[in-house]
Amino acid sequence: MYQFDFPYRVTYADTDKMGYLYYGNYATLYEIGRVETMRSLGIYYKEMEQNHQIMMPVVSVEARYLKPALYDDLLNIRTIIPEMPGKMVTFLSEIYNSEQICLHKATVKLFFIDMSSQLRVSCPDWMTDILKKHT
Amino acid sequence: MYQFDFPYRVTYADTDKMGYLYYGNYATLYEIGRVETMRSLGIYYKEMEQNHQIMMPVVSVEARYLKPALYDDLLNIRTIIPEMPGKMVTFLSEIYNSEQICLHKATVKLFFIDMSSQLRVSCPDWMTDILKKHT
Amino acid sequence: MYQFDFPYRVTYADTDKMGYLYYGNYATLYEIGRVETMRSLGIYYKEMEQNHQIMMPVVSVEARYLKPALYDDLLNIRTIIPEMPGKMVTFLSEIYNSEQICLHKATVKLFFIDMSSQLRVSCPDWMTDILKKHT
Amino acid sequence: MYQFDFPYRVTYADTDKMGYLYYGNYATLYEIGRVETMRSLGIYYKEMEQNHQIMMPVVSVEARYLKPALYDDLLNIRTIIPEMPGKMVTFLSEIYNSEQICLHKATVKLFFIDMSSQLRVSCPDWMTDILKKHT
Repeated sequence: MYQFDFPYRVTYADTDKMGYLYYGNYATLYEIGRVETMRSLGIYYKEMEQNHQIMMPVVSVEARYLKPALYDDLLNIRTIIPEMPGKMVTFLSEIYNSEQICLHKATVKLFFIDMSSQLRVSCPDWMTDILKKHT
Repeated sequence: MYQFDFPYRVTYADTDKMGYLYYGNYATLYEIGRVETMRSLGIYYKEMEQNHQIMMPVVSVEARYLKPALYDDLLNIRTIIPEMPGKMVTFLSEIYNSEQICLHKATVKLFFIDMSSQLRVSCPDWMTDILKKHT
Repeated sequence: MYQFDFPYRVTYADTDKMGYLYYGNYATLYEIGRVETMRSLGIYYKEMEQNHQIMMPVVSVEARYLKPALYDDLLNIRTIIPEMPGKMVTFLSEIYNSEQICLHKATVKLFFIDMSSQLRVSCPDWMTDILKKHT
Repeated sequence: MYQFDFPYRVTYADTDKMGYLYYGNYATLYEIGRVETMRSLGIYYKEMEQNHQIMMPVVSVEARYLKPALYDDLLNIRTIIPEMPGKMVTFLSEIYNSEQICLHKATVKLFFIDMSSQLRVSCPDWMTDILKKHT
């Protein structure tokens, strides 16, 4: 298991007429969380696409909205990789406000696509090797 | 059970560098689907907020990404109300491309909030009455 | 000069905590307006990229916000091609609400890029030929 | 004149199928730039709305797209307040990539609205006083 925290400030653009972070915009927070979590491990998603020809489309999202996030809240996006990736990788996202109250939880699963063949592949060895060192 | 179809054209704004409809933008499609489904029943979400002081925040989303939606695809958003609402209302969303292939499925649950008290309430009777007539 | 109208319904996703269509989201409306205007002429932007290897990035936007667009407003996006394209093409966008009040005006200029050479080119002849027939 | 720099990382959500930051998403960068610039001066936009009942809708945007911003670029949003606000306030936004190349320039004008009367007002004295100290 590996865990990483990254801050996010709620913009006006994010809000809706309820004054809340629009429910669809949490997906961008999961994305920021998992990209920065990978970066903290020395895994650069951009390079995965460019150099390794692997892209990671999302398979499924399960999200629970506990409390609203409000304009200008300085959120904490906690991202957890709960288990070693295989054919898929799972990221848990927990969104906290500045009082450490959990506002939102999500489970996002992605798979690995070889961009040249457009076929599904398993998590590359170099990526599982890095994860093994940090868990 | 009540079901309603509504078209949606994928914009450049919706796409990401994979060339797909960005995974977070499906939530807007669910929203369009459920608002237009309610409108088809004579239920206007805008009036619910303005006249009935009821708003409907999302509680949970479960989404499965089956195939990518591409730029300029003319999608069909099929929205299904599978059961009579009570403390919550469930909307199923199924997104089809123009060849009737199902690209995406989601289950979205919302509850009802009295805007003056900010408390949860049950689905208003006038709304269940309308649904009973159509199912 | 060629002019085309296309409807757009303001979503919750579009709004911000002021209750207005967020100022940044008008750009999507310009995009929808110009793509549908081209489609009305038999010019398919998707095919331009796929078959003609021409893409049209935006060079400049000048926008004036006259009145706010509100949630669930059924807007009319009027798109005007005021002059024959050359090295650039200009699209004027005028956004009206259902009472024909003009809420917003913008001038968007785009150029033409040959995708294989990544160089700027002039508007293709087949496109100016179509425009000449309709003006 | 006051100037402030703030970083922004381009997300997948921001990109479009060209692989560029979508042209409409720059408006969110201007917003982030001006809110953080105000914050650096001790002016909190959230408090302006909550405590001073003043909101600042956008009047006009003039934007020039010089070069594309790419996925995962770490941009610098430079925001400049070129002159003392009066009936309006002007913010210049300049977006640089990590090699200090200017990708984008914009001029955004906003006015001040008293939220109780919904009328336009001038820039509040306490705000001009703060600006005078820093220029």
